[in-house]
Amino acid sequence: MELLEATTEKIDRLDEEQMIAARQRLDSLTKPPGSLGKLEELAVKLAGIRGELLPKVDNKQHVVMAGDHGVVAEGVSAFPQQVTAQMVNNFLNGGAAINVLAQQVGAEMTIVDIGVAEELEDPNLVVNKVKFGTDNLAIGPAMSREEAIRSIEVGIEVSQNLIDQGANLIGTGEMGIGNTTASSAILAAITDLSIDKLVGYGSGIDQQGLEKKKQVIQQSLRVNQPQADDGIGILAKVGGLEIAGLVGVILGAAANRVPVIVDGLISGAAAVIAKQIEVQATDYLLPSHKSVEPGHIEIYKLLDLEPLLDLEMRLGEGTGAILAMNLVEAATKIISDMATFSEAGIGVE
Amino acid sequence: MELLEATTEKIDRLDEEQMIAARQRLDSLTKPPGSLGKLEELAVKLAGIRGELLPKVDNKQHVVMAGDHGVVAEGVSAFPQQVTAQMVNNFLNGGAAINVLAQQVGAEMTIVDIGVAEELEDPNLVVNKVKFGTDNLAIGPAMSREEAIRSIEVGIEVSQNLIDQGANLIGTGEMGIGNTTASSAILAAITDLSIDKLVGYGSGIDQQGLEKKKQVIQQSLRVNQPQADDGIGILAKVGGLEIAGLVGVILGAAANRVPVIVDGLISGAAAVIAKQIEVQATDYLLPSHKSVEPGHIEIYKLLDLEPLLDLEMRLGEGTGAILAMNLVEAATKIISDMATFSEAGIGVE
Repeated sequence: MELLEATTEKIDRLDEEQMIAARQRLDSLTKPPGSLGKLEELAVKLAGIRGELLPKVDNKQHVVMAGDHGVVAEGVSAFPQQVTAQMVNNFLNGGAAINVLAQQVGAEMTIVDIGVAEELEDPNLVVNKVKFGTDNLAIGPAMSREEAIRSIEVGIEVSQNLIDQGANLIGTGEMGIGNTTASSAILAAITDLSIDKLVGYGSGIDQQGLEKKKQVIQQSLRVNQPQADDGIGILAKVGGLEIAGLVGVILGAAANRVPVIVDGLISGAAAVIAKQIEVQATDYLLPSHKSVEPGHIEIYKLLDLEPLLDLEMRLGEGTGAILAMNLVEAATKIISDMATFSEAGIGVE
Repeated sequence: MELLEATTEKIDRLDEEQMIAARQRLDSLTKPPGSLGKLEELAVKLAGIRGELLPKVDNKQHVVMAGDHGVVAEGVSAFPQQVTAQMVNNFLNGGAAINVLAQQVGAEMTIVDIGVAEELEDPNLVVNKVKFGTDNLAIGPAMSREEAIRSIEVGIEVSQNLIDQGANLIGTGEMGIGNTTASSAILAAITDLSIDKLVGYGSGIDQQGLEKKKQVIQQSLRVNQPQADDGIGILAKVGGLEIAGLVGVILGAAANRVPVIVDGLISGAAAVIAKQIEVQATDYLLPSHKSVEPGHIEIYKLLDLEPLLDLEMRLGEGTGAILAMNLVEAATKIISDMATFSEAGIGVE
């Protein structure tokens, strides 16, 4: 709890002065004012986050938190639980979508076993297991409050280590069969939106599976009675270990003034919890894609963000966040490398 | 006319066999089937375009066609005509948004003076001027039918040269003060949509300017009477030299089975004309961003494409097309570099 408290206390406001300077510089560049739209907004926000006019994004780090979910016993996923561990091995062997995309964008990956249901060992895997998968949230809390806090702190440590080594942009990703169920349950606990707006087909269940998933989520809320204003309590009751880990990654990045990219439904649910814990943390979030999961757009509204990419993806792993990294870097290059009207000798009287 | 005819005759169907093989391979990779959404669709389309299962995108070329517009005499633009030439010099000096973004994505640029109103000379500028700017389309045709054809053929030659040197992805961009007026006029000539749906603020005119622009476009249609099914006639009557050049770039790419990325309103208007000239050419088009120009989304509908990026941009130069290049390349890496379920030892019974 000490690390979590120290971290949230460190989260400060954006640097308004640098944001004003960034807007001024953007308007002096050889383009109609505002014509680069969200790229310009990104450049302004990055100046506020980093506290400098021309921040660099040259050390991109992507974190994938992996954990299992007891709720898969209810039949809410298209894939069996062992696929979590199998996919972690796939990440370590470089064969997953996230590996391919991370390589293209020039990002390094950190894979964290924060709660996979079986023992995993690999020199390239960060093993910091809080628990061998959550308990079944349909019949009781997913984990204890202490375990939720410990999971958040694992994420803070991961963030902190990457930042100590120079990270200036962090992506959030996850692997955990069953985790769209937990994420939709988190959103249902926080908002008063209808369950139909928050629950989707995940990795590919059918219509019958979708109905089952909705019932399980509603049951989890009845059984656990999470309180909308208690982020840590929601994580413990209906969350997941990897989701809690991502909450920590986000808080750790925010505390160190490092921008952190929200991915899809699961990473987004973590961002919403981070906001419940410390509202200022949302200033450090950057958007990425719009997932086909219906709850995702509700997350963007809760976070006051708008997606940059519309690729109809629903893969997870942080694949949307990784694809957004190029756009974030593009924003930094625009503000630093373009000529001004006066440099280019273009008179606009 | 011979080059244009020879080019359109060469445009063939997509390779359905490779597209089926691409879909099969994508479904064998370690991800829920279809979960990479539009990236998977891109990979399938690229297989059909290139006629191979695993096409590479390792020679990205971006073409910026520059030309002036007589219609600026009507006061339809926020910038004076000489900014076209000034911006061409800015491109040649590396100071524009498109330079910065092209460098980030690893694309080479070809700048073509196809119709700037003043003499330009530079070793890095392709000078192939059809005319010193168009005539004022509000009082007569922008150019002759022969000039429109010659402009298209200039574009075909540019495409062909790049492809001869190995280009396997081409982006389309433009510079021309006044060219959103011509592009909206093209759309109004082709569709029966209300002028309000097709005309926007361009590089930044005010409300009064917008009304003026709409009047000018309606006047141009009355004066010139373009026929909806005559693409070349529309180009000549209410088009632009750089727009015609981009029509040629697109047709040249399609004839050589090279994918070509549509940018914003102007490049999109060129794509719509290319479709009028040879409907099969649209198979070779890839989408990019959704511009804030209202006519742009109508263009996507006409081309049966959906945007990948939503960045609220309205700069031109091909800035949206350049940003989409990374996504196109990502699609090629996904299909070629990911592990299959069996390679990764993931059993999904």
